[in-house]
Amino acid sequence: MLSADWLRAPAAPLDQAAERAALARQDQLTKPRGALGRLEEMAIALAAMQGRERPSVDRVRIVVFAADHGVAAEGVSAYPQAVTVEMVRNFSRGGAAISVLARALQAELEVADVGTARDPGPLRNVISHRAGPGTANLSREAAMTQSQCGIALQAGYEAVQRATRAGAQLFIGGEMGIANTTSATALACALLGQTPEDMVGPGTGLDAAGIARKTAVIRRALQLHGAGIGDPMELLRRLGGFEIVALAGAYLACAQSGLAALVDGFVASTAALATARLCPGASAWLMFAHESAEPGHQRILEALQSQPVLRLRMRLGEGSGAAVAVPLLRLACALHGEMTTFAEAGVSDREAR
Amino acid sequence: MLSADWLRAPAAPLDQAAERAALARQDQLTKPRGALGRLEEMAIALAAMQGRERPSVDRVRIVVFAADHGVAAEGVSAYPQAVTVEMVRNFSRGGAAISVLARALQAELEVADVGTARDPGPLRNVISHRAGPGTANLSREAAMTQSQCGIALQAGYEAVQRATRAGAQLFIGGEMGIANTTSATALACALLGQTPEDMVGPGTGLDAAGIARKTAVIRRALQLHGAGIGDPMELLRRLGGFEIVALAGAYLACAQSGLAALVDGFVASTAALATARLCPGASAWLMFAHESAEPGHQRILEALQSQPVLRLRMRLGEGSGAAVAVPLLRLACALHGEMTTFAEAGVSDREAR
Repeated sequence: MLSADWLRAPAAPLDQAAERAALARQDQLTKPRGALGRLEEMAIALAAMQGRERPSVDRVRIVVFAADHGVAAEGVSAYPQAVTVEMVRNFSRGGAAISVLARALQAELEVADVGTARDPGPLRNVISHRAGPGTANLSREAAMTQSQCGIALQAGYEAVQRATRAGAQLFIGGEMGIANTTSATALACALLGQTPEDMVGPGTGLDAAGIARKTAVIRRALQLHGAGIGDPMELLRRLGGFEIVALAGAYLACAQSGLAALVDGFVASTAALATARLCPGASAWLMFAHESAEPGHQRILEALQSQPVLRLRMRLGEGSGAAVAVPLLRLACALHGEMTTFAEAGVSDREAR
Repeated sequence: MLSADWLRAPAAPLDQAAERAALARQDQLTKPRGALGRLEEMAIALAAMQGRERPSVDRVRIVVFAADHGVAAEGVSAYPQAVTVEMVRNFSRGGAAISVLARALQAELEVADVGTARDPGPLRNVISHRAGPGTANLSREAAMTQSQCGIALQAGYEAVQRATRAGAQLFIGGEMGIANTTSATALACALLGQTPEDMVGPGTGLDAAGIARKTAVIRRALQLHGAGIGDPMELLRRLGGFEIVALAGAYLACAQSGLAALVDGFVASTAALATARLCPGASAWLMFAHESAEPGHQRILEALQSQPVLRLRMRLGEGSGAAVAVPLLRLACALHGEMTTFAEAGVSDREAR
């Protein structure tokens, strides 16, 4: 049993008055009703989350959770496990994709080491909140103990607390962990009742033989742990990775504290799906950014009834797909807040009302 | 016959050496090959257009061409014709959607009156380059004379000359003109050999009866002018609007002068299609931003073999859909230019090369 009290807290309610005010404002702006499409929906959704008619997302906090996976020993990734720590160093030095995006967006970037195979020691902009030296091999045993699962959840919770204290208006969770699409795919299969064949993709670049091997590993894991487990927390513990569990904890904390979260691609969306199962009201606080190239992503998005606006065929992780969508939210807020109304501009509204 | 010599000039060639250098650089950045998907393709395409390994799109010029349409008399729009000039004033004062987007993007916004029904007189940030007081009713006669068509093409050409002189790295053409989806749909039908039933949409918000009326008007126009006209310039003259012809002229001038153009939604894409028919090499200089809610847009994009990355269900025009895509191009350039390479970062590349 996980004992942290915060895990059982409900999601914060949306502000329906602010939502109605934002909707009314949209209908007065100098454009045909609905002509800005999803940009209007984004502004209205953010108004409901932020509790004000004119929302903004100037202050964005990005946290990349990094961890290693015992299942990497099964040869399910195109890259060696050492890359996880090497990329943590790359994040720290500002050379990775998410580093560049965070700078361009003037977003705050934090990296949380929640359990790489080797402890990299103190690094600039890296928080150490390790649940262990990588998970166990989920195709042979549970990925983590209950205690480790609790530490990883807590890492996500604390990251959101730091973001909230810093005044963040939007939270983006990223992940880095060699072999983590194997963990995420196994978890998504168990949560959705899908077979590995329907969900497995190339991750960062497996060939056909690699995909077949990855599929067999996930099938074995699902047989070992039992497809019938209904408890999402137990599924996270058996099939997750430390960074995936930390993301689930972070999304839960966002929903509880009323902070909008912009979810990244396949791995992050799997964590978001687990969060939605843990706390049904949490979904209202999760926005989905882009449709990943990983085939299983589409099924998770369908289960969450979400239609991302970006189809960039990205498959990187790190929070990069969510970061790329930040300007869309900002432009949605600018249009919503700064366009003039028909009355202010002296523009004729449509003839038939 | 239109006599302007520039109309017959070829499109500028792409820089293949810069394209190869950009491609080679992408393969060395600290991410799996191809993991940034369309963002990689955007950066490489811009490199080929700008003739340098690391392109940028800091300086963006947006020009909104505004004009009225005689076919508005057939009741094909949800809004009265007076809205065209009212919106020109709204652009001038900075209250319209494209005004807000231009400010947020730090892009230069220019409005070109190429023939509204009533001349609004001098307005701040509005260039007067009028081809007439709106077009004739294209369902009863040719929309414009050859002389008017030449003036409108020239308006587009000169707008691009101004953009080039100002150092623009990206050109966005927008349009405003009540009833212009009727003109654009008729033109697209003629260019693609489609029936109106396959192409007509609600524009800014017609109901079912309005759509039926619009379909009948377009059918009549296609019968009147003959579906067999092969010359895209003659189709522009008979079925176009001044702003649509100006956009076609602008896209042609972009291709000739080697300036990348980011094409907006349905109306702008129809002009781009006409340009591609006038000058086959022009397509290489046209990037497509978003998939509009207008149903005919998908068919035009297919004909141009283009897959926009944004699906926002926008249907506003003004260049707004293209403007919203500018941050994606900028982030693509930032990632391409600023990420470290595997060698610089000491990150292991994949095991099997």
